[in-house]
Amino acid sequence: MGEAILSDLFTNVLIPATAVVGIAFALLQWVLVSKVRLSPAEADAEGTGKNGYSEYLIDEEEGLNDHNVVVKCAEIQSAISEGATSFLFTEYQYVGIFMAIFAILIFLFLGSVEGFSTKSQPCTYSKDKTCKPALANAIFSTLSFLLGGITSVVSGFLGMKIATYANARTTLEARKGVGKAFITAFRSGAVMGFLLAANGLLVLFISINLFKLYYGDDWEGLFEAITGYGLGGSSMALFGRVGGGIYTKAADVGADLVGKVERNIPEDDPRNPAVIADNVGDNVGDIAGMGSDLFGSYAESSCAALVVASISSFGINHDLTAMLYPLLISSMGIIVCLITTLFATDFFEIKAVKEIEPSLKRQLIISTILMTLGIAIVSWVALPSTFTIFNFGVQKSVKNWELFFCVAIGLWAGLVIGFVTEYYTSNAYSPVQDVADSCRTGAATNVIFGLALGYKSVIIPIFAIAISIFVSFSLAAMYGIAVAALGMLSTIATGLAIDAYGPISDNAGGIAEMAGMSHRIRERTDALDAAGNTTAAIGKGFAIGSAALVSLALFGAFVSRAAISTVDVLTPKVFIGLLVGAMLPYWFSAMTMKSVGSAALKMVEEVRRQFNTIPGLMEGTARPDYTNCVKISTDASIKEMIPPGALVMLTPLVVGTLFGVETLSGVLAGSLVSGVQIAISASNTGGAWDNAKKYIEAGASEHARSLGPKGSDPHKAAVIGDTIGDPLKDTSGPSLNILIKLMAVESLVFAPFFATHGGLLFKLF
Amino acid sequence: MGEAILSDLFTNVLIPATAVVGIAFALLQWVLVSKVRLSPAEADAEGTGKNGYSEYLIDEEEGLNDHNVVVKCAEIQSAISEGATSFLFTEYQYVGIFMAIFAILIFLFLGSVEGFSTKSQPCTYSKDKTCKPALANAIFSTLSFLLGGITSVVSGFLGMKIATYANARTTLEARKGVGKAFITAFRSGAVMGFLLAANGLLVLFISINLFKLYYGDDWEGLFEAITGYGLGGSSMALFGRVGGGIYTKAADVGADLVGKVERNIPEDDPRNPAVIADNVGDNVGDIAGMGSDLFGSYAESSCAALVVASISSFGINHDLTAMLYPLLISSMGIIVCLITTLFATDFFEIKAVKEIEPSLKRQLIISTILMTLGIAIVSWVALPSTFTIFNFGVQKSVKNWELFFCVAIGLWAGLVIGFVTEYYTSNAYSPVQDVADSCRTGAATNVIFGLALGYKSVIIPIFAIAISIFVSFSLAAMYGIAVAALGMLSTIATGLAIDAYGPISDNAGGIAEMAGMSHRIRERTDALDAAGNTTAAIGKGFAIGSAALVSLALFGAFVSRAAISTVDVLTPKVFIGLLVGAMLPYWFSAMTMKSVGSAALKMVEEVRRQFNTIPGLMEGTARPDYTNCVKISTDASIKEMIPPGALVMLTPLVVGTLFGVETLSGVLAGSLVSGVQIAISASNTGGAWDNAKKYIEAGASEHARSLGPKGSDPHKAAVIGDTIGDPLKDTSGPSLNILIKLMAVESLVFAPFFATHGGLLFKLF
Repeated sequence: MGEAILSDLFTNVLIPATAVVGIAFALLQWVLVSKVRLSPAEADAEGTGKNGYSEYLIDEEEGLNDHNVVVKCAEIQSAISEGATSFLFTEYQYVGIFMAIFAILIFLFLGSVEGFSTKSQPCTYSKDKTCKPALANAIFSTLSFLLGGITSVVSGFLGMKIATYANARTTLEARKGVGKAFITAFRSGAVMGFLLAANGLLVLFISINLFKLYYGDDWEGLFEAITGYGLGGSSMALFGRVGGGIYTKAADVGADLVGKVERNIPEDDPRNPAVIADNVGDNVGDIAGMGSDLFGSYAESSCAALVVASISSFGINHDLTAMLYPLLISSMGIIVCLITTLFATDFFEIKAVKEIEPSLKRQLIISTILMTLGIAIVSWVALPSTFTIFNFGVQKSVKNWELFFCVAIGLWAGLVIGFVTEYYTSNAYSPVQDVADSCRTGAATNVIFGLALGYKSVIIPIFAIAISIFVSFSLAAMYGIAVAALGMLSTIATGLAIDAYGPISDNAGGIAEMAGMSHRIRERTDALDAAGNTTAAIGKGFAIGSAALVSLALFGAFVSRAAISTVDVLTPKVFIGLLVGAMLPYWFSAMTMKSVGSAALKMVEEVRRQFNTIPGLMEGTARPDYTNCVKISTDASIKEMIPPGALVMLTPLVVGTLFGVETLSGVLAGSLVSGVQIAISASNTGGAWDNAKKYIEAGASEHARSLGPKGSDPHKAAVIGDTIGDPLKDTSGPSLNILIKLMAVESLVFAPFFATHGGLLFKLF
Repeated sequence: MGEAILSDLFTNVLIPATAVVGIAFALLQWVLVSKVRLSPAEADAEGTGKNGYSEYLIDEEEGLNDHNVVVKCAEIQSAISEGATSFLFTEYQYVGIFMAIFAILIFLFLGSVEGFSTKSQPCTYSKDKTCKPALANAIFSTLSFLLGGITSVVSGFLGMKIATYANARTTLEARKGVGKAFITAFRSGAVMGFLLAANGLLVLFISINLFKLYYGDDWEGLFEAITGYGLGGSSMALFGRVGGGIYTKAADVGADLVGKVERNIPEDDPRNPAVIADNVGDNVGDIAGMGSDLFGSYAESSCAALVVASISSFGINHDLTAMLYPLLISSMGIIVCLITTLFATDFFEIKAVKEIEPSLKRQLIISTILMTLGIAIVSWVALPSTFTIFNFGVQKSVKNWELFFCVAIGLWAGLVIGFVTEYYTSNAYSPVQDVADSCRTGAATNVIFGLALGYKSVIIPIFAIAISIFVSFSLAAMYGIAVAALGMLSTIATGLAIDAYGPISDNAGGIAEMAGMSHRIRERTDALDAAGNTTAAIGKGFAIGSAALVSLALFGAFVSRAAISTVDVLTPKVFIGLLVGAMLPYWFSAMTMKSVGSAALKMVEEVRRQFNTIPGLMEGTARPDYTNCVKISTDASIKEMIPPGALVMLTPLVVGTLFGVETLSGVLAGSLVSGVQIAISASNTGGAWDNAKKYIEAGASEHARSLGPKGSDPHKAAVIGDTIGDPLKDTSGPSLNILIKLMAVESLVFAPFFATHGGLLFKLF
């Protein structure tokens, strides 16, 4: 078997050290962003200082000394920030109650496995050894569930704070040129990316070490309890995504329907009463929701890998360094992403609009190439040359270079998914241009072409995921899948940075419009935003791809824990599970889409009411009542997030308890293979419609100009498509990958209970 | 074990006799329809005769003596009929070439299993017996493939002929009242329903008896060869559905986009150059395509049941009556449907518009109740009280009443699916009314609500299918599933009658508009058509539900034949198959939607060109060039049906040959569980949009009037939804159930080859 080169002590130092480096780097970026002054006094100081705008004496300067603009931007920013904070606090209150109830459920279900006995028991996998009692597992699973939930809340909240801190600053920088604005937006994204990645790693590392104080040599129990961390993270993420998604799209759709379509005023016009709610939505949905989501994926893939490793030779031999291989991969990821970020912010400078997308794309390529090297190093120093992996009852011998391939293929599959997503959602390529072209004949053809585009965009990502699964599964069983997922998420800091960049730019554009800045500034932020739509789609692609791998790994761990040796499609129990599982994403999407639709209708009524009853609103002489719209979005999203949330959280419990582990396995597999497709197609369709609209608005080519300008019939058709795409790409689509993961991790956490007491209905008859 | 009560001789007489009765009944209905005269001379004779309109001296008479109207209707009808005939001939030519090539492929693949040896070989399941050589299987499979294809062509073609024969007659009868028109449309549907059901049964029965002359006691080989019949039927159906679907929707969307949206002329206005193509499309897509589709389902479920039965005690003991149980069920179905039809045409009379839908619904209920009794009788007289069924390598003991439950649950699940579909697509209930209401805020909310409705409508049908699968699987393994599918299809004659009724009414409305008949006539045909949209959706629901069961049964037969004992999701080979299989429906839908979109764009250009270049067209003084539009639809559909067709036909061959039977099993299961959902949601979404539009147009309630009238903003939004729904409900959705079935039956036919030579890629590495 051999030993790992890296000593256990060194591992124990290295992991927290890189986490701290990541946090420090995030803080550094924050300091750099904060250099953009947002109070007039500070701006003055800057304007006269040597680092001020005097360096940029090119034709991009405009209104740099206009105090009013700065004041207005600061005002708008604080309104957005307040709205977002207040919504998140409300959301967290409701979700907090849920988390408390669910924590009790976890404790009761898991505690009841051995009748709340405090006696030690034989281990599940090594029957000759003694492990901690089931009650301990119940307590520590509950604890780690709460820890995961709290870390997720912190991640989402910090992300939102940074984003709202950055958006007005990006707007102000846009006065100096597109390059400056880009760097501000990107740095802010990086703050979020690094904070999340480092924070997640650090909490997980500390928890493991604290739990070890009790568990000692019982690694099987220790890592089983740790999976609660993933469940906690994903549960929060579910509500964050769904609640935030409904919030943002109710506001967005509502604002657009009255503003753009009926009143013919531009997007983000300050006269629109829903405009603040719309901008708040970007921060609570796309930023806080997405941050929680990716944190959840990261936590789950780590947990899945750890729990499988704990019953493999690493765990049995108590080989700490090899055991913590997943965390070492994440540590390496932080270092690699740190270097990669410098390429965007320091090594190159963006000078023109057309350089934005290539620069973001370069981030993906650089991080992937560097990380491949990083994985090789970690695999070489942290793993024994040969080891065994638990594979549904048997131990499979694996070599360290084989595991390298597993991680690397996940990483590269992520890159492929990213590029395919870019191809289908960026208006630089023919698919989106075709969709834009179909607007000539109206909204109907736009929708038909957009749906077809989304369906088509599924093909290559699915093949990429399938190949990753096949290779990593063949090489290292379920552990291979888990580390492939980790590989895809290893560059999460960069992924999050370019993902968060999107909504920040979107908001920057909104603030520019609201602050009444010139058309030129708006053009720059629009260019940033168009690239942001693509990167947001790429981020969703990563989230979905990794969700597929993660949930398969969790599924495998669940099956092992539930002591099922095969999941045979040819048994009726499994097949009906498969069929019903494949239906769940549709049920879930129906709920979330309908919620957005209903909430948007309410918003439309309120916006219309204000336009009709507030005199001088259209003329810009009266201020709309922004607060009422914020309240409508808040109330609707809090109310509407409960049914879909309950569907996802209760399904595994009900199926496992009543129908047993075989049917539950079918449900997990069915929802996985069906949900991935809808999630990818929904987010790409939505992204494509959004950018088809932007393509017509920007009018950058002969073809685009023939479709425009704003307000032309093709543009109106494009706006309809964009509006339809909103709930698809920002509510239903991204929530689906949480559905997939969450059901899998929940099944894993409750596996001891299901294996003992599950399948009541079949036992009765 | 016991013996069946029914003697073999009696069975051999009964089956062809009921088939002949079915055909005779169809001809009788035809004669009754033909009593409506379509030439002025005949109409005159009728007008003065004692059976003429003098009976109907109520306020519904109108223009009965107007010769011009009759002449115009006859002209339009013949134009539609000619267009449809010419398209079908063109289509059949292309498909004929494909069928020939595929027949050769079948022969080569199956012949090569034993190297084209003419020697007898040990049987697959009873190794101690001797069966006919693989070469014989190759020859007879090829033959039955061709037979299935030809029967499908005949079914589709006859359906189209009857429909085009009936549509103008329905229009003319609408002058006398809605009841008369309803009966004409319904009788015509019945002609098609009974011809198809009886024809399919008769050809299958004759083929079995002819093949038996060679096969003798080798029933295993005989029924394996017969599965080619199902493959042939479904292959034709695929091209029929896809080609016909693209044809009809290209014309429909194209006609609507320019006519309704740009030029503001009514649907089916004779000034619209695409109007004939649109009406031709209804007949080649919704009638011929659907006829082929349901014939395919019927043929496949019979073949699946027969092939499983042949390796069960029925086959081993050469118990002919029990063996032909599936055909006896179909025979009983013909008799039951015959009685049911009388309830619609003779026992009750429709007097008002609001009675149409209940009358159609009554058909479903009556046929289901009678058929339950019929199944009980057949199960009692045709089955031994106990017998054994092949269940993946073991024989399972089954009682005759258990098999009754299997068939009955399929039948009742069909009814549930029918009712749920009605609930979600009829504008008498709140879901469609909500969708209509969402048109207030424009097309975007209409689309969002419509998509959500479609997703939601999946839930109950999936549970119904899952319960049927669980019960019938538990009671009688794969044979249970096959007969459950047969149960759902046992009332196919009634199902087809009410399904075909839809497009006939649609066409009748078109002809009324084109012939310049009064608003009142149009209102009556619109009412018939609105009910028709619902029944079309119900028909699609049946088609999809039965497709799910059929393909599962075929899948089971395939797995048995390929000698796989488990399909374990936890093996990488199977899982990647599952994932990629779940993606195929998306790939396929992307192709078909895009095809409709592109073809519609061409149509739009042509229609615009004609409006712009033909002077006097808008004023109605010049005739448009209908032929050109027909040609565009024909060319587009022939060209565009090839890639999706190739995807479906080649996938099993490629996967089976390169990756082997395990991966192919995964692909089949994945495409089944994912395709069912998309198919149901697509056809219900489309149906709901269509009826939401009709709801606003009809203005039958206070609420509906508040959204209308035609031309209002909400109505325009509804038209956009309707147009988007067209390809969903008539091209992609219904084609998907053929995708599911066809891949399964193709795998079954090629199973001997895959089992021997499959999985090349894995063998190489």
